[in-house]
Amino acid sequence: MKKKFKKVVIVGMGLIGGSIGKTLLKKGFAEEVVAVVRRESAIDEVMQACGATSVTLNGIEAVKGADVLILAVPVGTIVPKAIELAPFLSKGCLVTDVGSTKGKIVEKLEKVFEEKALFVGSHPMAGTEKGGVFAAREDLFDKAVCILTPTPMTSPEAVTKAGAFWNMIGMEVIELEPVNHDKILARISHLPHLAAYALVRAVAVDTNTNMNSNLVAGGFLGTTRIASSPPNLWVDIFFDNSKEVIASGKRFISEMENIIKALEEKDDKELLKLLEESKVYRDAIVKRLKRG
Amino acid sequence: MKKKFKKVVIVGMGLIGGSIGKTLLKKGFAEEVVAVVRRESAIDEVMQACGATSVTLNGIEAVKGADVLILAVPVGTIVPKAIELAPFLSKGCLVTDVGSTKGKIVEKLEKVFEEKALFVGSHPMAGTEKGGVFAAREDLFDKAVCILTPTPMTSPEAVTKAGAFWNMIGMEVIELEPVNHDKILARISHLPHLAAYALVRAVAVDTNTNMNSNLVAGGFLGTTRIASSPPNLWVDIFFDNSKEVIASGKRFISEMENIIKALEEKDDKELLKLLEESKVYRDAIVKRLKRG
Repeated sequence: MKKKFKKVVIVGMGLIGGSIGKTLLKKGFAEEVVAVVRRESAIDEVMQACGATSVTLNGIEAVKGADVLILAVPVGTIVPKAIELAPFLSKGCLVTDVGSTKGKIVEKLEKVFEEKALFVGSHPMAGTEKGGVFAAREDLFDKAVCILTPTPMTSPEAVTKAGAFWNMIGMEVIELEPVNHDKILARISHLPHLAAYALVRAVAVDTNTNMNSNLVAGGFLGTTRIASSPPNLWVDIFFDNSKEVIASGKRFISEMENIIKALEEKDDKELLKLLEESKVYRDAIVKRLKRG
Repeated sequence: MKKKFKKVVIVGMGLIGGSIGKTLLKKGFAEEVVAVVRRESAIDEVMQACGATSVTLNGIEAVKGADVLILAVPVGTIVPKAIELAPFLSKGCLVTDVGSTKGKIVEKLEKVFEEKALFVGSHPMAGTEKGGVFAAREDLFDKAVCILTPTPMTSPEAVTKAGAFWNMIGMEVIELEPVNHDKILARISHLPHLAAYALVRAVAVDTNTNMNSNLVAGGFLGTTRIASSPPNLWVDIFFDNSKEVIASGKRFISEMENIIKALEEKDDKELLKLLEESKVYRDAIVKRLKRG
């Protein structure tokens, strides 16, 4: 059987890049998966983790003749990497990134790749709190959602090809405008991460309290799981989407203040209303998800 | 084999009461488990859920001759129930409650049961976001921690008996002073619940945004799971421990504000430091838990 792709190049081999490589290889979708890494020591790691057929430090050599280029570096590094590699791409090469923010990145990458390759932004919404190529899994993307963020400038061919790529890897594909993507993600992903980091600090920062870790209940562990995510990646994401993240954070503080106010004023009816609405919202989301 | 207890009475058959009943029956620890419920319709439900050998609306009749009485009603109902039933207990009866707050409740119950029964406060730290007897499970308590909250007034016999009871059900037992319990729980349990309720509101309350539920990532679902907990139970808990909950809530808001400030001031070093400390704290807690 003919492989779907001849040469897929993945720049950045963390959890996402590594999982893309493993999935492509495991399912036999690419003849060659070339990983581009920054550290010499990462070469062995990627090979041990079975994330690629070959690994190199030289991105410029790697991308020559590629039919797909995936930029899987942290959000703050995507644009400089794109600028470095764009001149060496074949014109029909599909290029996409996997950044968790899209507005600014897509705007810049469209200019970088204009006339040079087929670009569309992607955000494969999969991940765990664990980072690095050794956390990579070939089932990471199964049934998860990948958001494509085409604009009026995007070539329809890029959208079709990228959609097919993510479908092949096991993802459902939906489309959103880049700016709309960032607004929504600020709420459903960036804010929960920010809140989890803050919650761990509020609970654990004062070491004067003897925190017997036996006492740590499932509630705390679940609520803060994502605070074990790599901080450097999240600094990039929070800054890149700072306007929306700040707005969401302030909305959240104001909801916290309302609940605290009801407590301070001993207004049990108001408190019950606030909590009940919250449960109703969440249960409805879970129900819609289950339905499908 | 002789059963460990002749007659265990459980007042209140929600998730915790129901799970205690199921565990006692499943493991053959009690000859008789009598459930006391408030609603006529709950009688059939408890029998269907196999939570007791018999169910009654009449608590006063039920507790006569009991060797163990478990008060498993919501926090706000524990004290009135205790006052109602105390006169009808045998003197050697072990009495404990399962409230998530302990300071005020223990202070009052010690007076109610003085000279009338063997009382010590308990907080079995087990649960899910699902309430009600149909969510009850006989493995709910396996390896979970139960906090006993004796005071200088508590009879040592009550502590020994209650410890043995929770051990039998599968729990590890530790002891904390009631007030210290409330301080610690405000942080590791009550605050995460409060934050989860507020987070759902911040994310979902504004229905103008088209929230495609396909987009809801695992991060949001995990962080807010406990916001599906029964609001009426949590209103009671938040009010009963309001001083500590308000203090924890304000500490949390101030941590949120620090993170937002770093974002507004574009201070990436400060933001990275805040997030890294958070990850270090959480990873250390998880590591200690795994070590056991």
